[in-house]
Amino acid sequence: MAKLVALLVALVAAAGSSSCAAWELSIRMPTARAVEEAAARLDDEIRDAAAPLIHALRPLVGSAGELGRRAGVPCDSWRLAVEAYNKRDWKTVPASCEGYVGHYMLGGHYRRDSRVVVDEAVAYAEGLELAGNGREVWVFDIDETSLSNLPYYAEHGFGTEPFNATSFNAYVMEGSAVALPETRRLFRKLVSLGVKPVFLTGRSEDQRAITSANLRRQGYSGWEKLLLKPIGFKGTAIGFKSGERRKLQDAGYVIVGNIGDQWSDILGAPEGARTFKLPDPMYYIG
Amino acid sequence: MAKLVALLVALVAAAGSSSCAAWELSIRMPTARAVEEAAARLDDEIRDAAAPLIHALRPLVGSAGELGRRAGVPCDSWRLAVEAYNKRDWKTVPASCEGYVGHYMLGGHYRRDSRVVVDEAVAYAEGLELAGNGREVWVFDIDETSLSNLPYYAEHGFGTEPFNATSFNAYVMEGSAVALPETRRLFRKLVSLGVKPVFLTGRSEDQRAITSANLRRQGYSGWEKLLLKPIGFKGTAIGFKSGERRKLQDAGYVIVGNIGDQWSDILGAPEGARTFKLPDPMYYIG
Repeated sequence: MAKLVALLVALVAAAGSSSCAAWELSIRMPTARAVEEAAARLDDEIRDAAAPLIHALRPLVGSAGELGRRAGVPCDSWRLAVEAYNKRDWKTVPASCEGYVGHYMLGGHYRRDSRVVVDEAVAYAEGLELAGNGREVWVFDIDETSLSNLPYYAEHGFGTEPFNATSFNAYVMEGSAVALPETRRLFRKLVSLGVKPVFLTGRSEDQRAITSANLRRQGYSGWEKLLLKPIGFKGTAIGFKSGERRKLQDAGYVIVGNIGDQWSDILGAPEGARTFKLPDPMYYIG
Repeated sequence: MAKLVALLVALVAAAGSSSCAAWELSIRMPTARAVEEAAARLDDEIRDAAAPLIHALRPLVGSAGELGRRAGVPCDSWRLAVEAYNKRDWKTVPASCEGYVGHYMLGGHYRRDSRVVVDEAVAYAEGLELAGNGREVWVFDIDETSLSNLPYYAEHGFGTEPFNATSFNAYVMEGSAVALPETRRLFRKLVSLGVKPVFLTGRSEDQRAITSANLRRQGYSGWEKLLLKPIGFKGTAIGFKSGERRKLQDAGYVIVGNIGDQWSDILGAPEGARTFKLPDPMYYIG
C-alpha cells in the first residue's frame, strides 16, 4: 500500500513539475515494449490501479484534457456509447482518444471489463440444463473475441488510423495473434460442459489454415466448426453471420450462446439463446 | 489548473495521513446534501474531474478497494456490463457499489454519458429525410429517460435496496421528478423538426394525471400521446412496450426513433428505425 501511495505521489509530483508535453508523449504512445517493461516492474494490483489513475490525472495536467467537454468528445463517454450500441457506423477512434484507448486496452481496464462479461457467460453456461445430445453449440467470433490483434493495433494508433486491409491481412497471415485469456477460459469451460464451440468469423476462407494454426497455438482445441467468409462474399457482417447461424440451426444445432466484440456478431435472427458483447473500442464492423 | 493540482495533492496528502475508514465513510455515503455542498464549492470543471479522481484513489487508499478484483465486483466493469446488456435480470446494485453509483449519478459522469447519447440522437434526427406528413413519431420512455427519479434513489441506496413499489409510487404521486436536461433537449429538437414525441411508460394508467403534470412542469409540451400501462396488466415490459409500438405502427405512425434507459424499452419488434440506450446503473426492468 505504501508503494502505491508513493507511486501516486510520484505521479502527482511529475505532473506538477514536468511539462504537459512530456506526459502527452508518454501517454499517447505506449509501445508494447514499454508496457511490458512497466508490467514486469509492477505487480498485478499496482498495474490495475495505475492505469485509471493516469487517466484521472490527464484532465488535471493537460491544457484542456481529452476527457473535458471543451476539448472534443469525452473519451470514456464515447467508449460507453460504442459499447451500448448508441454510436454506430464510425470509421475511426477520435484522434484525441488515442491515448485513452491505448491505456484502456493495455492497462488492466480492458481485461477487467472482459472478465466480468465472461464471468456472466460462465455462470449462464453452468446454469444451463443441457440435453447432452451433442447438438448444443456456442458461437465464438474470432478477432478481438477469441484472438487479440492488439499487437497490430498498438502499432496503428489503436483504431485512430483508417483500417488498412492490406497491412491487417499481412498481420493475420503471420498467425501471431494472442488468445484473449478470458474468452479461452469460457471456451474451455464450455468444452468441459459438453457444449461445442463454433467459430464464426469475418476472416475469409483463404485464411483458414493460418487461423486454425493460430487458434491451436494459442490453446484452443476441440471446436466443432470453423466458419469463414467465402471469398468474394458481398453483404454485411450481420447478414453473413446471422445467415450462418440460421444454417447451423437448420442443421439441427441449438445455439445456446453467442459471444463477440461487435454488435454485428450478435444482432440478426437467430441470435442464439443468450448473447454476450465483449468490449472493443478500437473498431466498428457494421 | 493550479487549483486542480492543489486539490489533487491535498487529496493524496489526506489519503496518506488519515485513516482509510474515514475515506470509506465519506465516499460510501454521499448524502444529497453533502454533494450539494461540494458542488457549490467546486465549479463545473473541477466537479467533473474530481469524481473520477476519487474513484481512482479508492483502490489506492482502501484496504482492498471496491474496484479491486479481490473485493467483489469491480463497479465500473459491472456498470459497463449492465449498459452493454451482458448483465441481465439483476435485482439490486451490488452493496459494495453504492458509493460508486452514487458518485456516478451525482457527479458529472452520468450527465456526460447522457450528453454523448443525445448528441448522437440529435445528429441522427437532423439527418432524417422527413416525409413531413405528421405521422413520424419518436418514442420516449419516462423514468430515468425523460424524468429523473434520482431524488428518490439517492435516499434509497442508489439501487442497492430492493425495489419498494409502495414508497416509489408514493414518490411518483408527488409529481416532483426532475427533467433529464439532455432528453428534454432532444424532445424539443424533435418537436422543432416536426417529429412527434410519444411517451411510452411502465407507469400505470392511474398515474396519468400526475405524470402529465410532472412532465409539463419540467418543460415538456407538445407530445402526441402519453401511453401508460393498463391497470392490472400482466406481462413483461418488453411485451407491453413492443405491443404498443406495434399499435402505433398499425395506426399509421412511423417510429423514426426510440429512446430509453432500459433494454426492455428498446428490444422487441418493432423497435423503431433507430434506438438509443441512456445510462442507468440503478435498476433493471426485464
